[in-house]
Amino acid sequence: MLSDSRFIRACRREPTDATPVWFMRQAGRYMPEYRAVREKYSMLDALRTPEIAHQITMQPINAFHLDAAIIFADILTPLIGMGIRLDFVKGEGPQIENPLRTTRDIDLLGTPPADETMPYTMDAIRLAVAELTPRNIPLIGFAGAPFTLASYAVEGGGSKNYEATKALMYTEPAAWRRLMEKLATVVGDYLVKQAEAGAAALQVFDSWVGALSPRDYAKFVAPYTKTVIEAAQKTGVPVIYFSTGTAGLLDQIAALGSDVVGIDWRVALNKAWAQIGDNRAIQGNLDPVLLLGSWREVRQQADQIIAQAAGRPGHIFNLGHGILPGTPVEMVQRLADYVHEKTARTETVSA
Amino acid sequence: MLSDSRFIRACRREPTDATPVWFMRQAGRYMPEYRAVREKYSMLDALRTPEIAHQITMQPINAFHLDAAIIFADILTPLIGMGIRLDFVKGEGPQIENPLRTTRDIDLLGTPPADETMPYTMDAIRLAVAELTPRNIPLIGFAGAPFTLASYAVEGGGSKNYEATKALMYTEPAAWRRLMEKLATVVGDYLVKQAEAGAAALQVFDSWVGALSPRDYAKFVAPYTKTVIEAAQKTGVPVIYFSTGTAGLLDQIAALGSDVVGIDWRVALNKAWAQIGDNRAIQGNLDPVLLLGSWREVRQQADQIIAQAAGRPGHIFNLGHGILPGTPVEMVQRLADYVHEKTARTETVSA
Repeated sequence: MLSDSRFIRACRREPTDATPVWFMRQAGRYMPEYRAVREKYSMLDALRTPEIAHQITMQPINAFHLDAAIIFADILTPLIGMGIRLDFVKGEGPQIENPLRTTRDIDLLGTPPADETMPYTMDAIRLAVAELTPRNIPLIGFAGAPFTLASYAVEGGGSKNYEATKALMYTEPAAWRRLMEKLATVVGDYLVKQAEAGAAALQVFDSWVGALSPRDYAKFVAPYTKTVIEAAQKTGVPVIYFSTGTAGLLDQIAALGSDVVGIDWRVALNKAWAQIGDNRAIQGNLDPVLLLGSWREVRQQADQIIAQAAGRPGHIFNLGHGILPGTPVEMVQRLADYVHEKTARTETVSA
Repeated sequence: MLSDSRFIRACRREPTDATPVWFMRQAGRYMPEYRAVREKYSMLDALRTPEIAHQITMQPINAFHLDAAIIFADILTPLIGMGIRLDFVKGEGPQIENPLRTTRDIDLLGTPPADETMPYTMDAIRLAVAELTPRNIPLIGFAGAPFTLASYAVEGGGSKNYEATKALMYTEPAAWRRLMEKLATVVGDYLVKQAEAGAAALQVFDSWVGALSPRDYAKFVAPYTKTVIEAAQKTGVPVIYFSTGTAGLLDQIAALGSDVVGIDWRVALNKAWAQIGDNRAIQGNLDPVLLLGSWREVRQQADQIIAQAAGRPGHIFNLGHGILPGTPVEMVQRLADYVHEKTARTETVSA
């Protein structure tokens, strides 16, 4: 039963025999198996071909002892069905051919159902779940949060200061709201469909929302994010809200009501948990750059995170962001095993 | 008397007739006067020519009602005298020809006195102070903090993940310590010399230290930053420690002991002040991107910041980072005047 898996139990703040571990971008360029597949398929082809997405999803599960899989997809695919022409340029990340420039561009965005625009991801989920369920490993579905998707759609790619995105918020608040409503509709539907296809948990990635002030987050972002989280929770699966650089937003993030809050390394896990409250699970928070360095430092930092979690139910060990391409495979293996060993709970067994 | 100026009084948490205002990068590309000078002089030439640096320093003081000037210089110039070959590439920012790659590179770095390597900045300070003091406007001197300087020296320029810098910390901790000690020596001496040349306050820019976890900050950075702040404070002028993205580090930042803590917009000013403590002044914290948008939003956010400061002595109004190049000059003017008007304290005057 998946509901009895370490990962799902931790999402529900139930005791586990050891702290569950998975890593963001656990299927990625640092793995030779992944690079081999990606030599043959572009990013878009890989994530649009269910058999390939399924294969990539399984790579880290077959290589390491991990407590959850995450479907191979991209946070930005919901934009494609809305009318945004997106490509992944080697070494430069996502690039958008027609970034949103006018309020008319926003009005022209569609909100078609995910079953029509992204059936490949639901198919990949079904394939992965069929293989994972007998092994009692839950599969995580995911999508980008409305703000993070809007930032790509407006900037046309990654950004340093989010000048165009914020300028839209500030100078065209009505158009911004229409954009966020459309994104919330599309993302909410997509997450629901992933759960229906078999995803046992759903993660909402708000990777760049840490660029905002508390006031802007409250005014321009939080209501739409809350809509998405509530839609996803209606499926009955636990929902994780992940962001980075948001140590100053944790009170508002807690109020969004996700089952699990994912944090980055820029805040101590115990302090973040105190702000989020005992009635939430927490996921994090080792700096992924540590994995490029020495095992000694990784171990010390992992020890500190485990000590800060203090054995309380509801901690999911993860990095504070995705695994970096230069990470040695052995480091990932070693960290997952170390966390399991270090947190193994000795239980009294009746003879 | 400068010590009776709004800005210096606020640094000392003494009551003022209105909240003092200055802006990071107040002399910059958004000003036509600045662009006119920079058409004739490269960045390095401009900051190495005392008359030009003085002229640029005065530009915003002559254009707006500001309560402090900041010497025109760059946070990175201390690296040049140490043996780092630095240039500013148009549109791309600072670039280093010989980034630190080996521990031997670190051992070869010199620590010559600032009077020998950067006499031009002390000369520019003397020129600016001669013009500013009769107008009772204090001049701020500044330098980059050891971590931020190290990150440029190791990465060779700006960075997203600081992978090389952190790898050096983690894998060569002894070399990292030697590097930070050298930087602390050079920066501390440079700040002292700026105060001796007439700077009435000193700001330490740790712009990128928000990339670190609380543990790494404590272990690899804070001791050296503290050394710099203490050296600067021995001159008797107030010291401001500025950083961004550090909402999770504020307890440690308070412990560094600077007179003023500069924060960015990613944390509410009242919450930050509560963490820093009442015995410190605070500087900030409007998102500079707001100035690219509508005055209505700027005013609302300024109102909120002023309300959060709650009239307590010790608030210096500033942005959370430097003014962006695309900022309309009128917006800067209007904001400075608005803060002064909004915070003007009605005082009982005996007849």
